[in-house]
Amino acid sequence: INSKLPDVGVTIFTVMSRLATETRAINLGQGFPDFDPDAGLLAQVDAAMAAGHNQYAPMPGIPALRAAIATKTQALYGAAYDPETEITVTSGATQALMTAILAVAGTGDEVIVLEPNYDSYVPAIRLAGAAPVAVQLLPPTPEAPGYRPDWDAVRRAITPRTRALVINFPHNPTGAVLDDGDLDELERILEGTGVVLISDEVYEHIVFDGRRHASIARRPALAARSFLISSFGKTFHTTGWKIGYCCAPAALSVEFRKIHQFMVFAVSTPMQYALAAFLKDPRHYLELPAFYQAKRDRLEAGLQQTRFRTLPCPGTYFLLADYSAISDAPESEFARWLTTEHGVAVIPIAAFHADPDAPASNRQLVRFCFAKKDSTLDAALERLQRV
Amino acid sequence: INSKLPDVGVTIFTVMSRLATETRAINLGQGFPDFDPDAGLLAQVDAAMAAGHNQYAPMPGIPALRAAIATKTQALYGAAYDPETEITVTSGATQALMTAILAVAGTGDEVIVLEPNYDSYVPAIRLAGAAPVAVQLLPPTPEAPGYRPDWDAVRRAITPRTRALVINFPHNPTGAVLDDGDLDELERILEGTGVVLISDEVYEHIVFDGRRHASIARRPALAARSFLISSFGKTFHTTGWKIGYCCAPAALSVEFRKIHQFMVFAVSTPMQYALAAFLKDPRHYLELPAFYQAKRDRLEAGLQQTRFRTLPCPGTYFLLADYSAISDAPESEFARWLTTEHGVAVIPIAAFHADPDAPASNRQLVRFCFAKKDSTLDAALERLQRV
Ligand SMILES: CSCCC(=O)C(=O)O
Ligand SMILES: CSCCC(=O)C(=O)O
Repeated sequence: INSKLPDVGVTIFTVMSRLATETRAINLGQGFPDFDPDAGLLAQVDAAMAAGHNQYAPMPGIPALRAAIATKTQALYGAAYDPETEITVTSGATQALMTAILAVAGTGDEVIVLEPNYDSYVPAIRLAGAAPVAVQLLPPTPEAPGYRPDWDAVRRAITPRTRALVINFPHNPTGAVLDDGDLDELERILEGTGVVLISDEVYEHIVFDGRRHASIARRPALAARSFLISSFGKTFHTTGWKIGYCCAPAALSVEFRKIHQFMVFAVSTPMQYALAAFLKDPRHYLELPAFYQAKRDRLEAGLQQTRFRTLPCPGTYFLLADYSAISDAPESEFARWLTTEHGVAVIPIAAFHADPDAPASNRQLVRFCFAKKDSTLDAALERLQRV
Repeated sequence: INSKLPDVGVTIFTVMSRLATETRAINLGQGFPDFDPDAGLLAQVDAAMAAGHNQYAPMPGIPALRAAIATKTQALYGAAYDPETEITVTSGATQALMTAILAVAGTGDEVIVLEPNYDSYVPAIRLAGAAPVAVQLLPPTPEAPGYRPDWDAVRRAITPRTRALVINFPHNPTGAVLDDGDLDELERILEGTGVVLISDEVYEHIVFDGRRHASIARRPALAARSFLISSFGKTFHTTGWKIGYCCAPAALSVEFRKIHQFMVFAVSTPMQYALAAFLKDPRHYLELPAFYQAKRDRLEAGLQQTRFRTLPCPGTYFLLADYSAISDAPESEFARWLTTEHGVAVIPIAAFHADPDAPASNRQLVRFCFAKKDSTLDAALERLQRV
């Protein structure tokens, strides 16, 4: 058969996790916790299964979970999504992203992505028959040491063929976050265009130093044209449960659901009941920034004792570090070397670029995941001190 | 936005289940059990979660589950699929079907489906940009009272543009099954063509009266060109867990996984561990025919006391019945009437046709699901006797 995705290989996460397992390296690569979810949440799954919740959920999700998502979104960001017509529970954020992209983009269309980017966006755009248009984030400089969105470049990238803009803040892999000024810019850029905004906010609850997350749902003008996508995987330490969701105005949700219902029909019933019950206590997500900030600080402080130079990390559970004091190797070579020779697996940022081998994609940066037990971070830091 | 699927509404299953809930009808419509999975299987989920299996599974599925699927498929059908490169665990059979169809079909291509058919095939084909080509099953006649595949018509439908043929036996909604002669026909029809076979076998373990399931995996020539798709939902009474799988030769699996990894990345880790453990005892699926045959016989015997006339049911957990002695109404009107006036929800067969309103789609047949407690079947039969 002809390949629909000729350029796609196995994802960098699979590659690095496999290498970590083979070499028994400490895995600070793929983004998932090495600790367990709350025991109370697991108990809710047991309770749901025992209560007989093992058959098909309603196609858009069980009403209790959709209501809990609506309540949370309104309380945090002020947007009132109707659970009946505007919220759909998905098999993780990945399925929601694929569904939203297939719903809006087709042959001859363009979809703008910011680069570096999470590796599912571009293949989803290509599968839709559309053309991805990459706009680079502004890279770190000595004066502004973090990545930043380049709104002028986004504005220039919009053409009559642009159907959608995909954004992802807090940003994987760079940790960049938006502020109110960025939302202002976004509003101005999209006003009067037909461009749909697809906002991947899976790290919405992981922002640090007292920041508040700049969700697109804070702005009615943005929410009215957006698919807001999030997930419980990063928030409740359940990346393997694959439960996410999509909030969007009814007209967009109708098209989203047409595809969703034939892509998966519905998602895990017992997990949905468990999450609906667990969401009743907002502390379960409100305590997350402090929890992860302590881990970020631990990793950052530890790396200061090494030859790595850390970049600012205002959000996500990923920290970037520059290794130019250690090696001249391109990123993917360095990441392999660090894994095999020093026993710490990381992710090269170049892997989040369309052309990982281009010099511009190789800034001698790697990504460390700090969603790990303190003992894991400490063990990794001990090894990194020897690098 | 322009609709990618302009003709799609809410599925008949959602419509009838909602109507059943609203009218408190007994729901013999949507295909799911009203009883619980084995307690031992639920205990395995608890054990998996407690053992820390809550983070991302490997993209193609956990090795233990893929190995268990390989063992089962080889023992039952003789095909040796390599778990490493040829078996992928999916979010239900629906996701596997969508993925396989997107992998093989594109703009300008044709995909043959047999009609009536499960409602996800045609939208998946359209989403791929391809054209569905429907071949009617041979309808029941007084001499041959069940539906049968019309292989001559399939042969005639193949053109140079045909990329794939989707089949589904045991067949939903008609209960039709294949025999060895059908597999011979399929081999002859496909030989020398480039047509990929997509075989939805989710009812593989539900065949009656001593039959053995005619899986395409029994024939190396068919397996070599096929996506074999199945699921644990129907087999282990867990339709709400959404765990299915796809077996296909490595060259097809490579393309399947490229899409799978960006559609859902991976599927529920704890459920995969639970199913892998549960599959160790083959009785869990080998006892299924006897279990469901008793329910089929109970429903069939009960309907003989009514004005419905049943069709033969050699497989699946669906029984078709003719209501022409009761009403002249078209099927969907009759199904609504039966639900609202007599309190038993069923599915019109017309809903499995591209044009549900066409006279040829309306043979005055409805589908009863007998995956129900005996007490549920008895209560429904009591109501049906008054119709
Ligand atoms: C789906 S595997 C990748 C997990 C993740 O979000 C990351 O590591 O960036
Ligand atoms: C996914 S809902 C439909 C379930 C089913 O297989 C049927 O009722 O035919």
